[in-house]
Amino acid sequence: MMELSKVASCLTRVRKAAPIVHCITNFVTVNDCANIVLAAGGSPTMADHIDEVAEIQERADALVLNMGAIENVSAMLLAGEAANRLSHPVVLDPVGASGSALRRASSALLTERIRLTAVRGNASEIRYLASGSGKQAGVDADAADRITRENAPRWGAMALDLSQKLGSIVCISGQIDLVAGLGRVFAFSGGCEEMARITGSGCMLSALLGTFLGACPDRPLEAAVCAQAAMNAAGERALEKTVRAGGGTMTFRLHLIDAVSLMNEETFCRYAKFEELSLRPL
Amino acid sequence: MMELSKVASCLTRVRKAAPIVHCITNFVTVNDCANIVLAAGGSPTMADHIDEVAEIQERADALVLNMGAIENVSAMLLAGEAANRLSHPVVLDPVGASGSALRRASSALLTERIRLTAVRGNASEIRYLASGSGKQAGVDADAADRITRENAPRWGAMALDLSQKLGSIVCISGQIDLVAGLGRVFAFSGGCEEMARITGSGCMLSALLGTFLGACPDRPLEAAVCAQAAMNAAGERALEKTVRAGGGTMTFRLHLIDAVSLMNEETFCRYAKFEELSLRPL
Amino acid sequence: MMELSKVASCLTRVRKAAPIVHCITNFVTVNDCANIVLAAGGSPTMADHIDEVAEIQERADALVLNMGAIENVSAMLLAGEAANRLSHPVVLDPVGASGSALRRASSALLTERIRLTAVRGNASEIRYLASGSGKQAGVDADAADRITRENAPRWGAMALDLSQKLGSIVCISGQIDLVAGLGRVFAFSGGCEEMARITGSGCMLSALLGTFLGACPDRPLEAAVCAQAAMNAAGERALEKTVRAGGGTMTFRLHLIDAVSLMNEETFCRYAKFEELSLRPL
Repeated sequence: MMELSKVASCLTRVRKAAPIVHCITNFVTVNDCANIVLAAGGSPTMADHIDEVAEIQERADALVLNMGAIENVSAMLLAGEAANRLSHPVVLDPVGASGSALRRASSALLTERIRLTAVRGNASEIRYLASGSGKQAGVDADAADRITRENAPRWGAMALDLSQKLGSIVCISGQIDLVAGLGRVFAFSGGCEEMARITGSGCMLSALLGTFLGACPDRPLEAAVCAQAAMNAAGERALEKTVRAGGGTMTFRLHLIDAVSLMNEETFCRYAKFEELSLRPL
Repeated sequence: MMELSKVASCLTRVRKAAPIVHCITNFVTVNDCANIVLAAGGSPTMADHIDEVAEIQERADALVLNMGAIENVSAMLLAGEAANRLSHPVVLDPVGASGSALRRASSALLTERIRLTAVRGNASEIRYLASGSGKQAGVDADAADRITRENAPRWGAMALDLSQKLGSIVCISGQIDLVAGLGRVFAFSGGCEEMARITGSGCMLSALLGTFLGACPDRPLEAAVCAQAAMNAAGERALEKTVRAGGGTMTFRLHLIDAVSLMNEETFCRYAKFEELSLRPL
Repeated sequence: MMELSKVASCLTRVRKAAPIVHCITNFVTVNDCANIVLAAGGSPTMADHIDEVAEIQERADALVLNMGAIENVSAMLLAGEAANRLSHPVVLDPVGASGSALRRASSALLTERIRLTAVRGNASEIRYLASGSGKQAGVDADAADRITRENAPRWGAMALDLSQKLGSIVCISGQIDLVAGLGRVFAFSGGCEEMARITGSGCMLSALLGTFLGACPDRPLEAAVCAQAAMNAAGERALEKTVRAGGGTMTFRLHLIDAVSLMNEETFCRYAKFEELSLRPL
């Protein structure tokens, strides 16, 4: 088991360490990503110019590569190599990984050339990285790639397999979320469907992962579990406030980031919902 | 006449079809555009890299070209040609059309090379497309280009003329909004002035148009009328909530997108305010 | 002394003049910048394409150069030269000025080639411009560069020195904010720490400065003092509402821009907190 209070303590470590999180990320959700890093207690720097990303990385604590910024893959490689040299945690969010030839080539390049601490995507994206198959229209997961209580062990096994192949923690976002790493798989039942009705929930979680890994590089699996559970807890808190206010999707987004900024270990422990899956090795 | 309940039914069709809306749009309001597509029930994909836009279009249902992304006109042409080949609806938002030589040339290129299902702009932008005259400072309509109850027929005739020239539905946003197509012109008296005090009201309406056309490609005029009336209804709902809260412009924006996410046919029918203008042909 | 009512009158002048504010700014906070310009009563235009920025400037009233858009320095130079030719006020925000070789070179280029009406940055950025020394990690001010009541005169002297060197008003944002120009230095004790927990507070203040200078080019020092005091007043108003609502960082951001949109001279005078420092010349 993973002790809840030990997981929760990552929250406080982030607030104390205030890690500088270097994100090379897409223009759609970059503001939300910067704000969620700040809400968690980190300091975001969104530099993506090829002439400075390696130098910027030197003064940062973690790196988040979001493939939504598909025009910046060269800068991602430079920053990633710098981060690897400096032993900074690196998160890859393979946005739309199978959605175009350019993205298929870019995800191959990034996973081959950069040592990744964590990879986080939706089920279609992770399936593509794990198996090379699957077609994704747009940036949402394909309807066929729905993680349920029943098929979670199969998805968990795939995540674990990819985790071993890449030497990375693998996080899959879905109705049930999965975090796989170091031979273990955790399933998360929290969160809410409203997270899929705003843009950026996935990108924000990737940025949050980078923030937690930047503050807790010595406990990456706990940091990842904490980031995932904190995001889900924030989603539930936000939904409560949105329903009470009779609000819509933007009210939900406001409360989602608010909840991250207001979260403490006590709230976290009250909301966190995850369990370890027992899987036979592949 | 256009039957209100038939117009309103587009709302439900969008929620059922969940069209993938490919937007090539500007970095100022891209997040709002993605969120309003989601709020309406669509799935936004904001890919703009020239090496993938044609392929991305293949798996999408509609295309929105926003000339605020003036650096991406080449990608717009490629995506537009793909959309035309695939018979996907295409919306053009000619942001700042007459504001610079670059924009004048780009709007000419886009209207000549792409078959547009709809064009939506403010009065100065549409006037420039229709007549080649007019000078616009910044991205707002010139004060001289104010659509009133009195001059609406004249603007309607201009919109209809442009509609016939381009073979497109033409939407003009202003104090009174106009939608012209298939030889008919509709005038909308809803909405509120607060929509002009936030950035992105126009861009969001263009993205909404793409969403509605993507779900209802067989009834483009009704889809356009529905999108315009829904946006105005959302504006009025948002203003009510903003006033009640003593809020300012950001409270208004939050409630505007919220209102789209919460809108159903019943609310729509209660708020929708439009009438057909009877115009003599030019 | 500077008369409070005369400073406050800049607010009304902005609403009447509705200056067109051309911003070349970064993709992280561009939406917030456009919205705060609108909230104050200006009209933002965020054009950054090198082929049109000079022409766009011709129809604008002020220019804001935000070095977060480090990929657009060439466009900044062209727009800046046009603004200088047209005697439009120009604001420079040297984001992360010392954070990379690229930024050090770019800040040198911009301060040498463009006549700047105002420069606004955090303490580390202004220190770098003033002395060529200091290292900044990320985009926040270094912890060592904290302006307090005790060391404010020393920072004020540095700001005044830079002001004389560049012929610009120099604004430093911090726990205590400073505005130096025309041989005078003003210290501001308002605002709140929450402003540093969202992204874009600094960028928004620079955009606000451009808006006020665009409306009051004949009274630049009063305009700068008004913009700074108005931003701080908005921060305090926003904090009150955030605390009352039990909100987090996004609630705060919403109320911050809201407060600018709702601010009138009376509110301004009630909240404005600044005093002139008496400094011995260097």
